[in-house]
Amino acid sequence: MTDRNQSEGVYHIYPIGYIRQSDSSSSLEILEQFKPALKQLDHFSHLIVLWWADKHDNEKSRSILHTEPTYAKGRVTGVFATRSEYRPNPIAVTTCKILGVNEEEGLIDVVNIDAFDGTPILDLKAYFPVCDRVKDARIPGWLTDWPDWLPEGGLGI
Amino acid sequence: MTDRNQSEGVYHIYPIGYIRQSDSSSSLEILEQFKPALKQLDHFSHLIVLWWADKHDNEKSRSILHTEPTYAKGRVTGVFATRSEYRPNPIAVTTCKILGVNEEEGLIDVVNIDAFDGTPILDLKAYFPVCDRVKDARIPGWLTDWPDWLPEGGLGI
Repeated sequence: MTDRNQSEGVYHIYPIGYIRQSDSSSSLEILEQFKPALKQLDHFSHLIVLWWADKHDNEKSRSILHTEPTYAKGRVTGVFATRSEYRPNPIAVTTCKILGVNEEEGLIDVVNIDAFDGTPILDLKAYFPVCDRVKDARIPGWLTDWPDWLPEGGLGI
Repeated sequence: MTDRNQSEGVYHIYPIGYIRQSDSSSSLEILEQFKPALKQLDHFSHLIVLWWADKHDNEKSRSILHTEPTYAKGRVTGVFATRSEYRPNPIAVTTCKILGVNEEEGLIDVVNIDAFDGTPILDLKAYFPVCDRVKDARIPGWLTDWPDWLPEGGLGI
C-alpha cells in the first residue's frame, strides 16, 4: 500500500450543458457541439445526469470528509456514505425521468432534478437496469424511512 | 438558447484512489487523506464508483459523439444513449456490490468492476434506492435481452 497524494494527477472536465429550472419545469440544455450525442436517447425512460456542484468547488467544501446528515441525527458519516455535495470532487449523480428529448434544440425535459438553475452538466448516461438497478440493496437503519424506489416525481431541490 | 463553448469553464478533478484488479478479486484502494470519508460506508450493500477512463482522456476519444454499439448491430447511437467510455468527459459510473470496507487500510473489496487495474477513482457514493433504483425503466428494443437487474456477479471487464 503506497501513500499517494493529489500531486500525481489532475484531470480536466468541461460543461456539456446547463441545468435550467423554472417554477414549473426542469430541463437540460445541451451545448451546440454536443447535440449529436443525444441521438437515440429518446428510447430510454430515464437518464443519469452527472453535474458539477459548482457552489462547492472550493478548497473548504472539497476538504470536508465527515458530515452529520439531517436524516441521521447525531450520526457522523463519511461523505462517501452520503450523497452530499461536499466531497473531494463535487460531481453529483442524479437519475431523472425523461419527459422529452429534442435533439435539434439540444433540450431534454426531465421530471425533476436536485440542482439549481445554471448548474453545469458534465455527462449524461442512459439508465441501464443491468448496470444501475440493484434488486437487493441493503441500507442503514437511518435510511429505512425513505422510499424503496426513485419517486415518480423525482428528486427536487 | 445561447450557443456556448468549452472556453467558458474548465474544472479540475483529482484521483481519490485507484482500482486494483487481480485474477481473483477487485478492490478499491483509497488514498490516505480520503480514508475518513469511508466512515459508515460498511452499512450499505452497494456503492457507485465514479472512475476516470484515463485511456480515453485524449482529444480523439473525447470528440466521439456517435457509436455503433456491439449489442445494437447496425444502429448508430449518441454516446449519451450508451455507457461507452468514449465521451466528452470520460467519467464512468459503475455500481458494485460491497464485500468489505476496511476504513483503516483504505480498502474496499467489491464483487467486480469493469475497469482496468490502476484506473483512477474520482468519487464513491453509497447506493441509495430512493435516488438510484428505478421501478419502471423503459429501454430500447436492442437492450431487452439484457438482465433487468445488476447481476449478482457484477459487471466485469
